[in-house]
Amino acid sequence: MSASFSPRAVCLVSGGLDSATSTAIARKCGFDVYALSFDYGQRHRKELEAAERVAAALGAKRHVVITFNLRQWGGSALTTDMDVPMDRSSEQMPGDIPITYVPARNTIFLSFALGWAETVQAQHIFLGVNQLDYSGYPDCRAEFLRAFETTANLGTKAGTEGQHFHIEAPLIQMTKAEIIRAGVELGVDYALTWSCYLGEDRPCMHCDSCILRAKGFAEAGIRDPLLG
Amino acid sequence: MSASFSPRAVCLVSGGLDSATSTAIARKCGFDVYALSFDYGQRHRKELEAAERVAAALGAKRHVVITFNLRQWGGSALTTDMDVPMDRSSEQMPGDIPITYVPARNTIFLSFALGWAETVQAQHIFLGVNQLDYSGYPDCRAEFLRAFETTANLGTKAGTEGQHFHIEAPLIQMTKAEIIRAGVELGVDYALTWSCYLGEDRPCMHCDSCILRAKGFAEAGIRDPLLG
Repeated sequence: MSASFSPRAVCLVSGGLDSATSTAIARKCGFDVYALSFDYGQRHRKELEAAERVAAALGAKRHVVITFNLRQWGGSALTTDMDVPMDRSSEQMPGDIPITYVPARNTIFLSFALGWAETVQAQHIFLGVNQLDYSGYPDCRAEFLRAFETTANLGTKAGTEGQHFHIEAPLIQMTKAEIIRAGVELGVDYALTWSCYLGEDRPCMHCDSCILRAKGFAEAGIRDPLLG
Repeated sequence: MSASFSPRAVCLVSGGLDSATSTAIARKCGFDVYALSFDYGQRHRKELEAAERVAAALGAKRHVVITFNLRQWGGSALTTDMDVPMDRSSEQMPGDIPITYVPARNTIFLSFALGWAETVQAQHIFLGVNQLDYSGYPDCRAEFLRAFETTANLGTKAGTEGQHFHIEAPLIQMTKAEIIRAGVELGVDYALTWSCYLGEDRPCMHCDSCILRAKGFAEAGIRDPLLG
């Protein structure tokens, strides 16, 4: 038997289709996947159940769920009992920052990913952000990710000792349709994912997240397997 | 009655003497203090009890403790059952990174502080790091803090809309003795603080943290009130 070593990547897995796809890309690139999810006081647990299914289906070596409660200060429709916007067309979404924005969420998520990456000697952190569909979210832009990467390399033992951390956002310039096509090619089973902001039995088809997902599948010419 | 508005600052309060002092400086500068502490799986709860006393004594408007568990991956003597180093002189400490280093800890702490700051419209985040006594810790250096500040301003709604976040580390170039003298002048009651890595009834006086504290009080020519 010969020993083999695969490089490791920490992959943020939310349970949605973007992070499932970026995780599949990490696997395709040959990384052992350390899947990381957050139970942060979001509106429902369906996305965490989806994250668990996605991590297992993509062969993650380990899946960790970090729990904390952003409802302690709120500040978002996702971490309070505010209503989420419904029935907005995708043209109405970009440009402004929706009330579903959670202050500093990706900074918090990436910080935990960095801590785990340093601990398991992973140099790559994958996340599924894209700046086309969510141009309003400041923490989904390449400029922010580059700044975080600089911070990561200055603020860690491994980084200052010459191990370079890379923040990988392979979907950042892709449309939802392109993401879906890439995922289908990689064998991602989107029936396992969950995008709806509400946590009911079936997707509501009216929230921003459902509308963007439906538009993506329609433009890709693929039927969403979650809709059965 | 006239309405008045004080600017707000989120202050990281660990229960130790450095963060008590930096929080006192924030108060002195006229900020309303939003004190933030973390129950992250550290070795004991004495420092959290100290944080609560310090936040109250310094008149914090609110004190929030965010709970998460870094023992899920460990990586530090503070988040595993490893022994902490004992009986090292302060000359042996700088230069190497001790096993009490917690991967990405200050990045994680600052990320939460940023989320809360954005939510309560605070533009200033105070923390008690200093790079002289802890030159080994990469996330206690000015270079790291500047990089985080850039990240904060790119990764938030408020930052991208022109509200500038400032990471304030007023102790960064001070010795422990200078910090203690400054704190005493500001009326900080160091009897309320806790520095020892162990969580026993009294400070052990043998861990790195006790040794640096004792050296600081000795050099300042002040008796540590915690020692009764």
